[in-house]
Amino acid sequence: MENGLKKSVFKGNKALEAADAISIRGVLNMLNDNLSGDDNKPSIPLGHGDPSVFPCFRTTAIAEDAIVDAVRSAEFNCYSPPIGILPARRAIAAYLSQDISYQLSPDDVYLTVGCNNSIEVIISVLASPSANILLPRPGYPMYESRAAFSNLEVRHFDLVPEKGWQVDLDSVEALADENTVAMVIVNPGNPCGSVFTYQHLKKVAETAKKLGIFVIADEVYDHLTFGSNPFVPMGKFGSIVPVLTLGSISKRWIVPGWRLGWIVTCDPTGSLKKSRIAESIRRYLNISADPPTLIQGAIPQILEKTKDDFFVKIIKICSQAADICYDRLKEIPCITCPHKPEGSMFVMVKLNVSLLEDIDDDIDFCLKLAREESVIVLPGVAVGLKNWLRVTFAVEPSTLEEGLGRIKTFYNRHMKQQ
Amino acid sequence: MENGLKKSVFKGNKALEAADAISIRGVLNMLNDNLSGDDNKPSIPLGHGDPSVFPCFRTTAIAEDAIVDAVRSAEFNCYSPPIGILPARRAIAAYLSQDISYQLSPDDVYLTVGCNNSIEVIISVLASPSANILLPRPGYPMYESRAAFSNLEVRHFDLVPEKGWQVDLDSVEALADENTVAMVIVNPGNPCGSVFTYQHLKKVAETAKKLGIFVIADEVYDHLTFGSNPFVPMGKFGSIVPVLTLGSISKRWIVPGWRLGWIVTCDPTGSLKKSRIAESIRRYLNISADPPTLIQGAIPQILEKTKDDFFVKIIKICSQAADICYDRLKEIPCITCPHKPEGSMFVMVKLNVSLLEDIDDDIDFCLKLAREESVIVLPGVAVGLKNWLRVTFAVEPSTLEEGLGRIKTFYNRHMKQQ
Repeated sequence: MENGLKKSVFKGNKALEAADAISIRGVLNMLNDNLSGDDNKPSIPLGHGDPSVFPCFRTTAIAEDAIVDAVRSAEFNCYSPPIGILPARRAIAAYLSQDISYQLSPDDVYLTVGCNNSIEVIISVLASPSANILLPRPGYPMYESRAAFSNLEVRHFDLVPEKGWQVDLDSVEALADENTVAMVIVNPGNPCGSVFTYQHLKKVAETAKKLGIFVIADEVYDHLTFGSNPFVPMGKFGSIVPVLTLGSISKRWIVPGWRLGWIVTCDPTGSLKKSRIAESIRRYLNISADPPTLIQGAIPQILEKTKDDFFVKIIKICSQAADICYDRLKEIPCITCPHKPEGSMFVMVKLNVSLLEDIDDDIDFCLKLAREESVIVLPGVAVGLKNWLRVTFAVEPSTLEEGLGRIKTFYNRHMKQQ
Repeated sequence: MENGLKKSVFKGNKALEAADAISIRGVLNMLNDNLSGDDNKPSIPLGHGDPSVFPCFRTTAIAEDAIVDAVRSAEFNCYSPPIGILPARRAIAAYLSQDISYQLSPDDVYLTVGCNNSIEVIISVLASPSANILLPRPGYPMYESRAAFSNLEVRHFDLVPEKGWQVDLDSVEALADENTVAMVIVNPGNPCGSVFTYQHLKKVAETAKKLGIFVIADEVYDHLTFGSNPFVPMGKFGSIVPVLTLGSISKRWIVPGWRLGWIVTCDPTGSLKKSRIAESIRRYLNISADPPTLIQGAIPQILEKTKDDFFVKIIKICSQAADICYDRLKEIPCITCPHKPEGSMFVMVKLNVSLLEDIDDDIDFCLKLAREESVIVLPGVAVGLKNWLRVTFAVEPSTLEEGLGRIKTFYNRHMKQQ
């Protein structure tokens, strides 16, 4: 006994420790703990995708009004059905149907507590002792974390930096076997800032069809594009291969703290229903967290009434910020950017530690950068690529300039003398 | 292949099916599917604890204003730390400290997406191959569902109807072994409507201490009492045995759709920290859903500014409704109520099917009642007691009278002729 608890009371949870060890939040917590605390150098968050704290990224008044109307109506204080309330599901079905060639039904839509929760739901549903899932490398580690927690085997295919971070489809075919359930793509890309073309997405669909698996399309950054490739939803190819689309209002409306996401079956042939995947999602939602009814109640107004000028403004800031980021990083010799970002809020850049005096690797770089310059950047190892960095550019432009300037100062102090 | 998916793509998820089969939501969905749809008989929901749809149970304007202020401030659109934002955790620590004899710290508080999510978190953390947990029978089946999903062994102790649904502490001692981690109590009681005395809770603490386990105190119905026993938080006994308190604003403020709950370590001796349970909760929160920052932002105002008259009004309605429920049910011969409800929103009553002509059991009773009378009542089997019923009285009084009247009509139609 130790203060009333027997020693054996809790032996820890190995799956949980493994899952958390690869979480972005775990890494960011560690970096934040290493901040200098120097008042003259306010910390600059280039480590995660949340520009909502900057006034220039404030969400539209339409969205705020929708929440106020929902709370004042007193109609959304009640429990929600586990799949979400019908008006919200109907609005999301209509919103997503605009960009694909067939009509989604409200029954295709399952509401979640944000896109991270969508990942939790789908990984929990698919996990079974023999199954495996194909994930991109680099990728978004919530997939790996939830798979580790649920004992779902993960196999990684590569995204190719020289080809604009396209999927290496040969490696997808080589990895898959009869126990493969699905492959995940993240488009627009996190962490790469890439945007897949129509042609490439069609090839992804055809490869998945050939393998008899379905595609999980993480489109949390939908429509956040500013390069030559427009955003094409994977659901467009739903008649080639069944698609589960994951999304949320977090990024396009800059309200990640409202935690409203979705899982949508883009499945005109009904394969996901026949294979009981849809039923299993429904079952899991019966025993897991719901997004607040209050926020669900605001969804129809938010999706139907937001004006284009809000989206145009946000895209313009992101585009300028991506330019600043790309140009400034090019000036830092130990950093190479293989592909200029065209979407999402991130760029992946390569770190050449051989040009640095006393930096072991990407984690060491990020820890010392946090301590000395109060700048947070995510080490690439957290998204699957050692000695790379993921840099967020969705930051108020002058803050971004300041942060990138400090990274250059940091390089100058640590560069290897010739 | 079947419409592009190979047949083996998804073999189902047995743990999930088992977990959902015992969920209240699964049972209520089935009953709702059996409603008559008769427009002359609007359905009456006596199956779940959500009075928010009735105008007399509308939440206080203070709470609505707090949400409006939070959204208008634009300060809560951002991601929250996984454990929740400090002002909300500080306010909850202060709120709960009022009723116990020591000061809780904000670091004792972990925010969740409502109390169901608190259950999900704690069961996910505690699940390990050899561990077991002690649950009350009858109980709240989200514990059983999440334990089934996580393969955590469950052992049931009885609540004794003749003793005001107190815990049978002898059976707790008999069930526990060296792999037992914790015992759960729900107080005020769901499904029983019971309220434990100070003396009984102290005995629970002493029993847990003797066994070297900790207590999970589900206090989601805290302060909703109207009998002779006042609400006593289990945290009062934190120096006898470590307590994890689960709670939320859902019930006391009648806003279950806002999904804001908590897990709190009432642990003045630091045992939960030493045994790494607190650390594991923190890890799990890194990889699971967060409550919206927007709602978290409203918590300090809600907890600090709500006036007593609101609580008094709600208690008064619940008390009257409990009286109506108890009196009307007594008039139905096939139903016996062993203990008048003193708290929460429910009463457990025994069903004597031998007095009925063509009713097999509690499920059959509830299905036919839904179909013929459009009244939803939860079969006792869903909370662990076959041939009992759980009836919600937290309903607008005239609707409650109407619902109970229809149950009597139903009895009259189905009673066995002598």
